Amino acid sequence: MSEAQPIGNVAIVGAGPGPVDLMTLRALDRLQRAEVVVYDRLISAEILERIPATAQRVYVGKALGYHSVPQEGIHELLIAHARAGRRVVRLKGGDPYVFGRGGEEVQALQAAGIACEVVPGVTAASGCSAAAGIPLTHRDYATSCVFLPGHLANDAATHDWRALARPGQTRVFYMGIQRLPHIAERLMAHGLSPETPAAIVRDGTRPSQTVLACRLSRLLQCAPAYGPQPGLLIIGETVQLSPYFESD
Amino acid sequence: MSEAQPIGNVAIVGAGPGPVDLMTLRALDRLQRAEVVVYDRLISAEILERIPATAQRVYVGKALGYHSVPQEGIHELLIAHARAGRRVVRLKGGDPYVFGRGGEEVQALQAAGIACEVVPGVTAASGCSAAAGIPLTHRDYATSCVFLPGHLANDAATHDWRALARPGQTRVFYMGIQRLPHIAERLMAHGLSPETPAAIVRDGTRPSQTVLACRLSRLLQCAPAYGPQPGLLIIGETVQLSPYFESD
Repeated sequence: MSEAQPIGNVAIVGAGPGPVDLMTLRALDRLQRAEVVVYDRLISAEILERIPATAQRVYVGKALGYHSVPQEGIHELLIAHARAGRRVVRLKGGDPYVFGRGGEEVQALQAAGIACEVVPGVTAASGCSAAAGIPLTHRDYATSCVFLPGHLANDAATHDWRALARPGQTRVFYMGIQRLPHIAERLMAHGLSPETPAAIVRDGTRPSQTVLACRLSRLLQCAPAYGPQPGLLIIGETVQLSPYFESD
Repeated sequence: MSEAQPIGNVAIVGAGPGPVDLMTLRALDRLQRAEVVVYDRLISAEILERIPATAQRVYVGKALGYHSVPQEGIHELLIAHARAGRRVVRLKGGDPYVFGRGGEEVQALQAAGIACEVVPGVTAASGCSAAAGIPLTHRDYATSCVFLPGHLANDAATHDWRALARPGQTRVFYMGIQRLPHIAERLMAHGLSPETPAAIVRDGTRPSQTVLACRLSRLLQCAPAYGPQPGLLIIGETVQLSPYFESD
């Protein structure tokens, strides 16, 4: 660069699962001091209301892997605003480093020499598990928990279904509700009992939250065909602890 | 019960990874309105300072599976304070439903007819991943992430090492740093490359944070023998994105 430029910075901020009061204090602080906010489809209206009136809002409409702005365009946008000397907030649903492409954005910013920080958030699995009464781990039911995407970016890729079918774990499929039939079929083909408790949590933690929780075989029968709505699919024994769980 | 009793309630609150400003607004609200706070060893001093001066503090000293108060004693304590009509906060590091025994406490409270809510928090994996620059998932490196305990409650139990040794996932062992030699040995015996990037994050997100990040074989050589300190062990290709990572 031939002349000195003002250099801004980017905070990649996890907004949590929806309600303002499930944001961290740090996330809200960064949002309230932002000059530009670049945000996705999943950010709730009540959080958007906290953006300062003076700040520029940029909607990049990421939903279920379809982007109204491609990922590279988002990188260019963040870099351009930061290079113009602004305090930029990149606001993401949940936690930036869990299915949020936060890693790719940090890489792009680092490559461009832009200062950035990542503010962690309450990931959808934690939000939905608290709101639906489904522990992610429990001494009697689940030693571990695993977070997976409902859709794999690479069509040739596949999950390790044999491992996922083993008992003693809670499986959380992000954006997984459209893939329920496929996921259930694969897990049962690898030995998971159709009696395993399972839940679909839509709009978890929000006033519009809905929870369907029952045996996996029954969930397959009673779950509607979902359109491109966001939602979590949780499969594992701890689902039976939910007050929403219907055992038959 | 022969006579009407005042009935309080219990909020099981995730305090996040340490700093006050990584608490959610809801968590801080519940803490500031508490009449009794029952808390563990991992809660930071700056969070404890936010407990109202008028509230009773009860330390139950849970650390690495050793409890100064046994789990049943904690249940009795929560129930007794709630039955005395108090607003009780059960304050836990991270998220209550990820290795927090939140599930067991909710069950005990429900069985006793005590109203309770669970306030989700930023789990240690999210906090440490943001603070150490290690994405938990990334399109190029890790399709999924799995959270496991360093120690299994049941000595006869074992992890699915074959599945854990497969590429394309980020493995996070909570309280896993003491078990690094065992975990690394098992993973490598099942085919994980000794060149796999791995990190030890101690006091993640706190001013005292330390990060050791390098190839797994090297981590085995350079990591000290840890005493009963808390710490996260993260193993997977995304660790190479950390600014702390030393490639040789």
